[in-house]
Amino acid sequence: MTSLNETHDPSRRCVVDAANDAQCDFPIQNLPFGIFSVGGGSPSAGVAIGDQIINLAILLEKGALTGDAEVAAQAACSGTTLNALMALGNAPASALRARLVSLLDADSASDFDITEALVPMKDAELHLPASVGDFTDFLTSRHHFSRMRDNAPLALNFMSLPIAYHSRASSIRLDGDIVRPRVQTVEDDVVSFAPTTKCDFELEVGAYIGRENQLGAPIAVDDADSHIFGFCLVNDWSLRDTQRFEGAPLGPFLSKSFSTTISPWIVTEEAMRPFRTAMEPRRTGEPAPLPHLASEVAQDSGALDITLEATIQTAAMRADNIPAERITLTNLKHLYWSFSQMVTHHTSNGCNLRPGDLLASGTASGAADDSCACFAEMTVRGTKPITLSNGESRSFMEDGDSLTISGVALREGCARVGFGSATGTLVANTEV
Amino acid sequence: MTSLNETHDPSRRCVVDAANDAQCDFPIQNLPFGIFSVGGGSPSAGVAIGDQIINLAILLEKGALTGDAEVAAQAACSGTTLNALMALGNAPASALRARLVSLLDADSASDFDITEALVPMKDAELHLPASVGDFTDFLTSRHHFSRMRDNAPLALNFMSLPIAYHSRASSIRLDGDIVRPRVQTVEDDVVSFAPTTKCDFELEVGAYIGRENQLGAPIAVDDADSHIFGFCLVNDWSLRDTQRFEGAPLGPFLSKSFSTTISPWIVTEEAMRPFRTAMEPRRTGEPAPLPHLASEVAQDSGALDITLEATIQTAAMRADNIPAERITLTNLKHLYWSFSQMVTHHTSNGCNLRPGDLLASGTASGAADDSCACFAEMTVRGTKPITLSNGESRSFMEDGDSLTISGVALREGCARVGFGSATGTLVANTEV
Repeated sequence: MTSLNETHDPSRRCVVDAANDAQCDFPIQNLPFGIFSVGGGSPSAGVAIGDQIINLAILLEKGALTGDAEVAAQAACSGTTLNALMALGNAPASALRARLVSLLDADSASDFDITEALVPMKDAELHLPASVGDFTDFLTSRHHFSRMRDNAPLALNFMSLPIAYHSRASSIRLDGDIVRPRVQTVEDDVVSFAPTTKCDFELEVGAYIGRENQLGAPIAVDDADSHIFGFCLVNDWSLRDTQRFEGAPLGPFLSKSFSTTISPWIVTEEAMRPFRTAMEPRRTGEPAPLPHLASEVAQDSGALDITLEATIQTAAMRADNIPAERITLTNLKHLYWSFSQMVTHHTSNGCNLRPGDLLASGTASGAADDSCACFAEMTVRGTKPITLSNGESRSFMEDGDSLTISGVALREGCARVGFGSATGTLVANTEV
Repeated sequence: MTSLNETHDPSRRCVVDAANDAQCDFPIQNLPFGIFSVGGGSPSAGVAIGDQIINLAILLEKGALTGDAEVAAQAACSGTTLNALMALGNAPASALRARLVSLLDADSASDFDITEALVPMKDAELHLPASVGDFTDFLTSRHHFSRMRDNAPLALNFMSLPIAYHSRASSIRLDGDIVRPRVQTVEDDVVSFAPTTKCDFELEVGAYIGRENQLGAPIAVDDADSHIFGFCLVNDWSLRDTQRFEGAPLGPFLSKSFSTTISPWIVTEEAMRPFRTAMEPRRTGEPAPLPHLASEVAQDSGALDITLEATIQTAAMRADNIPAERITLTNLKHLYWSFSQMVTHHTSNGCNLRPGDLLASGTASGAADDSCACFAEMTVRGTKPITLSNGESRSFMEDGDSLTISGVALREGCARVGFGSATGTLVANTEV
């Protein structure tokens, strides 16, 4: 198990009351980074604490930071994204986090009143935390792989490398509406162009790259975690009807590029350390990773114990004031490959990763029937609709449905470290 | 045929002597945009003319530009890439081009001596002209599709939509070395990780997006050309051994992401207009494009008549002072889909394109045997090596081989409009 530092001390209490609530995603032990604005002002860097945001620019203005902590905050405040902070690698962000912990600690005297730098989260608008240069989506859940193929055995390439595709960076968004895309599909050899009827979600976790590697310089697997700045939730919206038609031979394109919804806060690699756990052992007959992907560190602590759920609220539920209903409960720890292995595979051909690049895990399904992390799995590609508590049924997303993904890391003896959530609402395509 | 304006007048002669050479890629009728630096200085915007580069910053300093031309130059000089210029759409760049023509015209009096703003190309270092947010690679040559599949008939999806995949933006480079990547391959169910043995080139042309569209707002096919700022040459390096192994179900990943080599100058959409020509008619039994992709304009003038060639110079040829030898001669006009149709398909699901995004045509092979635009076609996937004039044979790239792609638009009664070239040299992987 990874060694923990003082910033993980679960007994620590925060000067921000809401952060001390055991159900709060953003206690003093988390401190995720994000970008926010107030009243239409310019986007600026902040850190979530309870129901507040720490405005890093104010800490800089007031001279509350020194050394690496100041370097980190200056980088964070140098633009309208966190890319410059990420580019520094994780040490400066770690120093800033440690300084914030000392400023927020309710039980230790501080030389600076941090409440001067707080902005109520309810007054803030959140923005994309990074300019994502390249967005890569993996396929690393054995359960997703098999369920999508009528419970087929794992393919040799799935067991040998973390399968992935380049995805679309321009359409990554926070919470918001998604216009039902029009797509080409085929039935009985007749091709048509119409609004998709198989809009699906995919519940995933993404890793942001911090320190870059140069083109031609692969990252060794045991060095890979140091290139990961932090994590967020990812909903890799997918259109199953056109995905099948368009996909040969070059893979998914328009079935993915219309939108990806991510959560706004970046939970740092450091904040996630208490939740590292052993990867599931490979099963009998499954090959061991090749040497460049093999890692005792990954095997012992490369899995992340993050409880993930997806909820749905239909238009009818909203009208009847029925709260969102959970349709998936899964955990990221079941992945076949660690993020360190994904980074190493990604760079093994010399490909360079840049600060702010996003690597998503792929649909994080578990073995249990209620842990299917997309509709196509849980409804067997739409053939067995699920029934919601209010009697409605769903094979895929319907107009007006809001789909929310959320995630939280829980471990006995540790404070809760939450990711918040990300919501997308499918709306009718009125251009048709 | 598209109407031409005065900037295409082939009788016009330039104050820069080299631009009047009939073999020069950069006559007064071309004026492509790029980014250059001199003596390690900061990258800056320029326009190629003959053997010189027009330094736009000097034109601005000297007050030689007004109106839209000045607006365009200011945007071009506002950073170290041309993205801001591209974002303006094509009218300001067109105004700047017209002003440059008048300044460069040897036969008309000018209020400003443009030679004050010239930098010899030989003294300049060229840089990537744009920050490419997303790089999309298409598959639009019927000949490439069929030859790669033992002359199989076109698939229904190929005939219905321009097949594409998201590719890697971070590893796009100008001329340079490419370290032979290590990749996973499989033989007799045994997977290994070693330097690729099937490094291939793919000769393509890319279109840079200018004016963006908003997420959720598709671009109509007859409006699509107005979103294209200009064109460059693209070598989409490909590793055929791992491409096959890694590619199911999500398409090419590491087989493409290690490097893409592009040419440095952006030939504007306006400069290419004289070379628009009719697309080849669809053959009997092939479906017409669906209404949203159907366009009389595309059919009549959506093909670009660009002669493309690839040459190779091996290490042995270099040692013996043997010049590079042509291995491919093809033309972009044979594509099954126009760039306007690619843009429309790309955005048909609501995907947003941003200024500087790059859309590549896919391997631009023709019907003739000597127009195979990659090794895999010309050597039947490596089974029938080609023999070079010095007796060497090649199935794929060998260490020390320099592969150069070049392109030029030629039409009777028009000045030559060239793209220059792009060279990549494969070098041994010394980490093994």
